[in-house]
Amino acid sequence: MKHTISVLVENKFGVLARVAGLFSGRGFNIASLAVGETNDPTVSRMTIVVDDKGNPEIIEQVEKQLNKLIDVIKVQEFAGLECLDRELILVKVNATARTRSEIIEIAQVFRARVVDFAPDTLVLEATGDEGKIRAIIGLLGRFGIRELVRTGKVAIARS
Amino acid sequence: MKHTISVLVENKFGVLARVAGLFSGRGFNIASLAVGETNDPTVSRMTIVVDDKGNPEIIEQVEKQLNKLIDVIKVQEFAGLECLDRELILVKVNATARTRSEIIEIAQVFRARVVDFAPDTLVLEATGDEGKIRAIIGLLGRFGIRELVRTGKVAIARS
Repeated sequence: MKHTISVLVENKFGVLARVAGLFSGRGFNIASLAVGETNDPTVSRMTIVVDDKGNPEIIEQVEKQLNKLIDVIKVQEFAGLECLDRELILVKVNATARTRSEIIEIAQVFRARVVDFAPDTLVLEATGDEGKIRAIIGLLGRFGIRELVRTGKVAIARS
Repeated sequence: MKHTISVLVENKFGVLARVAGLFSGRGFNIASLAVGETNDPTVSRMTIVVDDKGNPEIIEQVEKQLNKLIDVIKVQEFAGLECLDRELILVKVNATARTRSEIIEIAQVFRARVVDFAPDTLVLEATGDEGKIRAIIGLLGRFGIRELVRTGKVAIARS
């Protein structure tokens, strides 16, 4: 099962390496990671998605270890409907005169934006939760994806 | 000066810790980092934003070191107009009956989306380049930002 863990950290050098080391030291591969400043520039937030490989109790242990790191302010796990999650992708897809309008229609249905236009490619910017992102990548796949860049998931608690 | 470095890596455990360690070992604080799978699930892409603190030649050295890491496939620095860059933010902002319509107008101007609505807060999802993201955070700041989550920047080469 995948877990989405949000970690508030002091924006100091080395903290990312320590957090990443904690996961890799236990054999966990991080599926996605997004790190950015919060509205307090001395504090950053890491949103980590990690697969527990069938051992949810190990994730609990990792969370406890995270809490012990000196620059970690808060660790929170997000699950289910209590949070909103989003990811942004940029995808460069093959587009010919024949296929371009179909790709633009797919973009419109998914409220994606065409952000670059070349004779043989289009670049789309799309955002959504995991399911929507998977769906749009699946639909664009048959045109031939040249490049796909994902931010990794971020999450925020619902009010 | 800030540099945007894109690193294609084998999707293996430990590689993130090694890359992060390489930056922290040289005293560089990573300003933002986004890691996600590419369209090949065995390959991930890291987009790293780092400040050279006035020493651009040190960034060059870091790039050379990155290229020597065993799981690193490709290192690319993006600069200026040759690339498209985007970031996604989720921002929970104070909203009362009096201020809500103004916040929604700001969202419309910036093509941001209202993704959660509570009696005293709104959550907006916005995407854009660095300047646009800075502008929307600045405008929302005077209502009171309760929470701000950023994915960090991702970039793709223009065609």
